[in-house]
Parts: sequence; structure tokens; C-alpha cells
Amino acid sequence: MKTDVSIGLLGLGTVGCGVVKLIRQHQEELVHQLGYEVKVKRILVRDIEKDRDIEIDPASITLNPDDILNDPEIDVVVEVMGGVNEARQYIIKALENKKHVVTANKDLIALYGPELQELAWKNQCDLLYEASVGGGIPIIRGLTDGLVSDRIQKVMGIVNGTTNFILTKMMDEGVSYEEALRDAQALGFAEADPTADVEGLDAARKMAILARLAFYTNVKLEDVEVGGITNLSSEDLHYGKTLGYTMKLIGVAECQDEQIEVCVQPTFVAQNHPLASVKNEFNAVYINGEAIGEAMFYGPGAGSMPTATAVVSDVVAAIKNMQLGVNGRNLRGPRFERKLMPLDQRYGQFYIRLHLKDQVGAFSKITSAFSALDISFKRILQTPDKRDELAEIIIVTHKVSLDRFQKVLLQLNEMPVVKEVNSYYLVEGEA
Amino acid sequence: MKTDVSIGLLGLGTVGCGVVKLIRQHQEELVHQLGYEVKVKRILVRDIEKDRDIEIDPASITLNPDDILNDPEIDVVVEVMGGVNEARQYIIKALENKKHVVTANKDLIALYGPELQELAWKNQCDLLYEASVGGGIPIIRGLTDGLVSDRIQKVMGIVNGTTNFILTKMMDEGVSYEEALRDAQALGFAEADPTADVEGLDAARKMAILARLAFYTNVKLEDVEVGGITNLSSEDLHYGKTLGYTMKLIGVAECQDEQIEVCVQPTFVAQNHPLASVKNEFNAVYINGEAIGEAMFYGPGAGSMPTATAVVSDVVAAIKNMQLGVNGRNLRGPRFERKLMPLDQRYGQFYIRLHLKDQVGAFSKITSAFSALDISFKRILQTPDKRDELAEIIIVTHKVSLDRFQKVLLQLNEMPVVKEVNSYYLVEGEA
Repeated sequence: MKTDVSIGLLGLGTVGCGVVKLIRQHQEELVHQLGYEVKVKRILVRDIEKDRDIEIDPASITLNPDDILNDPEIDVVVEVMGGVNEARQYIIKALENKKHVVTANKDLIALYGPELQELAWKNQCDLLYEASVGGGIPIIRGLTDGLVSDRIQKVMGIVNGTTNFILTKMMDEGVSYEEALRDAQALGFAEADPTADVEGLDAARKMAILARLAFYTNVKLEDVEVGGITNLSSEDLHYGKTLGYTMKLIGVAECQDEQIEVCVQPTFVAQNHPLASVKNEFNAVYINGEAIGEAMFYGPGAGSMPTATAVVSDVVAAIKNMQLGVNGRNLRGPRFERKLMPLDQRYGQFYIRLHLKDQVGAFSKITSAFSALDISFKRILQTPDKRDELAEIIIVTHKVSLDRFQKVLLQLNEMPVVKEVNSYYLVEGEA
Repeated sequence: MKTDVSIGLLGLGTVGCGVVKLIRQHQEELVHQLGYEVKVKRILVRDIEKDRDIEIDPASITLNPDDILNDPEIDVVVEVMGGVNEARQYIIKALENKKHVVTANKDLIALYGPELQELAWKNQCDLLYEASVGGGIPIIRGLTDGLVSDRIQKVMGIVNGTTNFILTKMMDEGVSYEEALRDAQALGFAEADPTADVEGLDAARKMAILARLAFYTNVKLEDVEVGGITNLSSEDLHYGKTLGYTMKLIGVAECQDEQIEVCVQPTFVAQNHPLASVKNEFNAVYINGEAIGEAMFYGPGAGSMPTATAVVSDVVAAIKNMQLGVNGRNLRGPRFERKLMPLDQRYGQFYIRLHLKDQVGAFSKITSAFSALDISFKRILQTPDKRDELAEIIIVTHKVSLDRFQKVLLQLNEMPVVKEVNSYYLVEGEA
């Protein structure tokens, strides 16, 4: 009789080391849970000599992926190497060799999740990826099991720790984007090339994954509208704060009348909204369901050990399924065709900042433009500008359809009394 | 071939009506998920004539539990009738008749959960009770699946919506306990007899359930220390607010060195703590795990439809298990014997309010008592008292063992310079 389960690890970076540590530290609990010992039999690395903060038996390390993918003793392959093409090839081979796969790779799942899922089902294997969204937060299980009976209407999340750390610094300490980014890099919360994080691409991948699971539909990455945080000005953050908002990079996935929208945008969130108190590198996913109303899952969105928690919980699930002989049944769900929601059916509140020429009737001209499009104001803030012939105006609108908001933006840009439309952001919640 | 699954409902109150509604409204999704139609075949009620806000086929209603428990067509019994003895008898009979059971009954699970779980395993049936804690929040799955690979150190929660509603009113609007209770009753957030809620008993039951799952041990209800909110004074809430705290009824379950403590106490929570922003009838459970660090699950802790979400998600899980032939494997876990943690190994910060006689050296006498027991102060607030021969002192201590805190309380009560120790509360977080 088998007394242990062997896993193969593809990658031994931050998360890989966490997985090895967690399996060692919690071996007693794993044996209690599973009746089996969980052994990391083989680890694929790029560089054998690299210094790592854990001790690894040199015999278990390999440069050859086939030592894992072709080893009949290995039941579960854990992919924590990152990147897309190689990882995809290895996972395909693992599934074809009837190995269950656990991955933390959001880039890969966002791009090839549905294709890999099909392959997993065909081979009666598990493909699990809890760690791909929200690090250690069990948000994927929350959606697919915990809220399975509900009809999800909206998923709104802070799903990128790097940008949330930067924005927290900018809002709470008033530092510039550049300084906050340097701090994040120094503390290991941002990479040397932060593009994927600060441009919103990483968050977009995670939102695509969440939207697929929430709405049972095949959201493609290119369906996600993406905005980043690189152009935020400290003026806007200051004014937002004055108005009772905090700036967050918010991913929204919404489904209405079988149409969906998925976007990632810097957004002013009302201070009393549950997402406003999510600080630094933490993540949170806020869910609106027809029956549950609102719920939120909060926790560390990255980091070696938290992410390892999600990976190893998936490994446990795969092993339990092996014991029961029911692998390949997870995350199965109906697939609906859903169209993207057209702009005239999408609504949002907006913050807009602009400079008017200080002429008699200037303000009345812009308010007529708004009211002609039936856009009403919730808040107006006029501040004296240094350039004294100009007036700086901040407007927070009530809910407006996105097509009408785009129209008013066009009109404002063409009006002679408007010197410049400086910025506009989505607003969430009531400040 | 079977094309539907029949469930029997014990009880048709708030939650029962929600379950019927949810199954009707989401039938399409359920069929997609399961391949089966889910039919509520029979409903046990106490009063056939009672007005209900949903339409029910009179033929499906019965006063006789055996119409459900002995019906071979019924696969899943959903117990939402509440109460302990009858519900327990019916569930036992259902399990013995090889029916899977889903229950929302925290009183029953807190008292008889382990016994019923054993019976379910013996009969290869599922016994699921996600709705028993935190209403619609999938916290039980979060612990048993999502965080299965972690070693949970502490579970801290706001798990009673009634008291959280009352405390929110008292803190935010400054109203008295009596007035807040009346409001809660008028809005349906508190029952005519609110004892179980306001005395902390309901929260204690839920914490016992969570502690069992988190620490794999058989916590008994009598192991939970319980305090309620009926004696809170508006003075203390006012001073707490001044010091940066908000008052919450907090359940804590902690495990250290294989010893546990479980208690429910009114607690001052620092305003910047994630639990402080949980308002009104909402619930939240905050978890510390060795690997994940901190995570939180937030949502509606009660209500017809949210609770029905958790119930029907359990029904879906039971039916999926039926299809796979793996019922009776859920929530199985190792059981450790764990002792209760002795007072000298339990630590807490405390808020304490007392009146001193206004004598020279009085304050120095009490500070000596504290420092002799090695208890240091974090904050001190002295306020002039109306009774002008007295001084009112509020102290927030640093962490102190509970036995030493009890000693200092005894000494203070016996000191001639101390007129009265008015109140003391646990403090959580750094204000």
C-alpha cells in the first residue's frame, strides 16, 4: 500500500521555497488530513548553484523538466516557475501524463485557462489555481463552492498588492508616485520592471479569471479594459481625500442581462467602503450576489508563505480527490456566451477636474453641457488656482452612462471657456 | 435515469422561505451545475394556515416529519426549524435513513455536532452546516478547504449581527443600550427575547463550532467563556472612542502549544483594525494562520436570502458528492485532545476605569500596585469627575497575563484610596 504522495515542483523561487517550507512544517497536519505523507520528490530549477534560504537535498534538484513530467511516481505537479510558454508546455505534458496540476500562474491561466481546463477534464486530472488570484485568500473556492448557489452580479477587487502599496503610501503619506514606487521596490513589493503591476495588466489577468468563474463564461484577456496608476497626480489624490475618497486600483467585473463588463481602473473609493480600508500590500475581493447581498474576502495578495498556503491547499484537494477517485471534476461549470456590455448600458459616477478661464458665465456654460446630457452633480469644489486667470473646478457626478460621460468630455474639450480637462476617475460608494 | 433530486425541508420560517425562493430563482444555474433539477418535495411546518410571503403547493406541506424522514425519494433533508431536541431527533432519523443533512442550526451543532458527525460518517452521509456560522459567509469552507494547509493560530470574529447592530448604534449615534435594542427589535435584527444574542450565548455557540474546525479538537460549549453587552455604559463607550477604539462583541478562539482558549467578550477594538469597520448587522471572521498571516471573511451574518445561500450551497455540495459517490467524507479531520489554556498563559491588553479618592499620593499607590505585578501602561486618561472629591482614571495596559490582571483587580478593590473599579474590558489592536 502506498504511504506517501510524491509531488514535483516546477520552479524554486519565492513561492516554490514557500511550498517546500510549508509542506515540511505542516507535515504532521497533512498526514492527519490525508493519511499520506506528502513528499516533494523532484524540483526543476534554472540555476542549481543559486543561494536559497532553505536546505534542499541536491539529489532532488534537476535542470530537466522530464525528470518530473515523465516520473511515474509523481502524482501532482506544482507549477510555480512563472512565465507563459514554457510553463504551458510543461503543464500540457503533465496533464497528458495523467498528473494533477496545481499552479499559481495567473498570466498562464488568464491566457490559456479554458484550454488547459479542457485538457485536464479529458485526462481526468485536476487543474487547480487558487493561488493565481489574491495570493493566500481562498477567493476562487469562495466563488465556486461557497457562493455556488448564488447568482453573482458583481466582483470588485483590489487584486494587485504592488499598486495598493504604492497608492497607500501616496494617499496616507502624501509622497509622489516615483517615491512610493522606489519604496515598494526597496521592500520587495515591486519588481525592477514594474510595468505589469503599475499599468494594471496583472490586475486585469486576475479579473479575467474571476469573471470567468463568477459568470460561467469565457472572458478573454483582451475583453478587459485596463488603466494603470502611473499618471496619477498628487493634486487629484489631495482633492479626492478632501472629498472623502481614497484612490485604489479597482478591478470590476459585472454581469447584467447576460452582458458583462470587466475593467481595471484607478478609482476613488468612498472612505466608508469596505475596500477603502484595505491597505498596503493586502488584497480584497468584494462580491455582490443576488441572494447574499455583499461579501468580502480579505488577506495577503502575495508573499512566499501566504501564496504557498493556497498552493498546498490545492495540493491537499487534489490528493483528497485522488483518494476518492474523483479528479477532474473541479471548477467544472456551465459556459454561457456573454456579450460585452455596450457603453450606453454601463454606468458610473465620475470625478472630473478641469480648469476654466475665469470669465463671466464660464461655469454656467459647462453646467449647461452636463445638464443637456442629463448628468447631475453630487459635489462641486472650486479652488483658487495659482494661475490667477483660471478657476479650478472639481465635479463629482451622480451615476451616468459611460457613453454620455464620453460625450460630455468631448464637448468640454471643445469649449472655449475650458482651458483644460485635467483628469477624470471613476468613483465608487457614497462619501 | 433520475433527472431530479428531491429535498425535504424541516421548517418554513425566514430561512426556510429563503431556501424555497433561492432554489426556484436559481433553478437554471442549479441544473447547469448539477445536471439535475432540485425539487423541494415536502415541507414540515408547525402551522399549515400561517401566512407566508411565498406561494407553496398545499400538497407539499405536512405536519408529520415522517412524511419527509421516511420518504425514500428524498435524498437531502434541510433542517431550518431551529431549536435543539426535535431537530436533533429528526436529523438522527434522517441520517439513519441514509439521507444527507444540511442544517443552519448553530445551537444544535454547537451542542451535538461531533455526535451527529460521527453518525453521518457511519451512514456515509453528508452533514453540512455552513449556514450555522456567519450566515451567508462561506467561513466554514474557508477554514476547512481554503486554509486546510495552514496551521490556524487564532480565529477572531464578530459572529452575532444583533449585538453588532446595537453596538454600532451606541458607538456611532451615542444612543443608550435600551434605545439601540428597541431599534434592533423594530427592524427585525433582535428577537422579542434577545437574551441569547445580547448575553453572548449565540456568539459562543458559533465560536465553539469555529474552534473545533480550526484546531481539530472537540471544544465543548461549556469551555467557552461568555460575556454579554447588557451592562455596557455610555461613559465607557465615550472614553473608548476618545482613545481610538470602538466597542465590539468579539469571539476569540486561540491555540498555542496545543492548549486552547475560546471566549466571547465585549472588547475595545482599535479603529484601524479590520474588524472595527464591520458595522450594523454584518459579521466578519478574522483569521491568523502561521503561513497566511491574516485573512478576513466579511458578509451578512443573518437574513433570509444570505443564509439560504449557504444552505443551498451545502445542498449543491451534497448532491455533487452523491453524483461522485463520495458522501460522508466532508469535514472529516483529525481530532486532537487539547487542554484549556491556564490563565497565566493567556494574555490580553485591558481598558480599566476606576474612581480614586482625591488624596495626595492616591495615583502613586495604584501605579505601584500595577508595577509590582509588572503591568505597564500604554495610555492613561484622567478626567475631572462631577463628584469633586473623586478622580476618574482610565488606564489602557500593555499585554498582561490574565492571572496577573485578576490579581491587580483584587488589590485595587481592596485599596482604601480606590473608591470603585467601574469597569474593565479587553482591548484588541493598537489605537
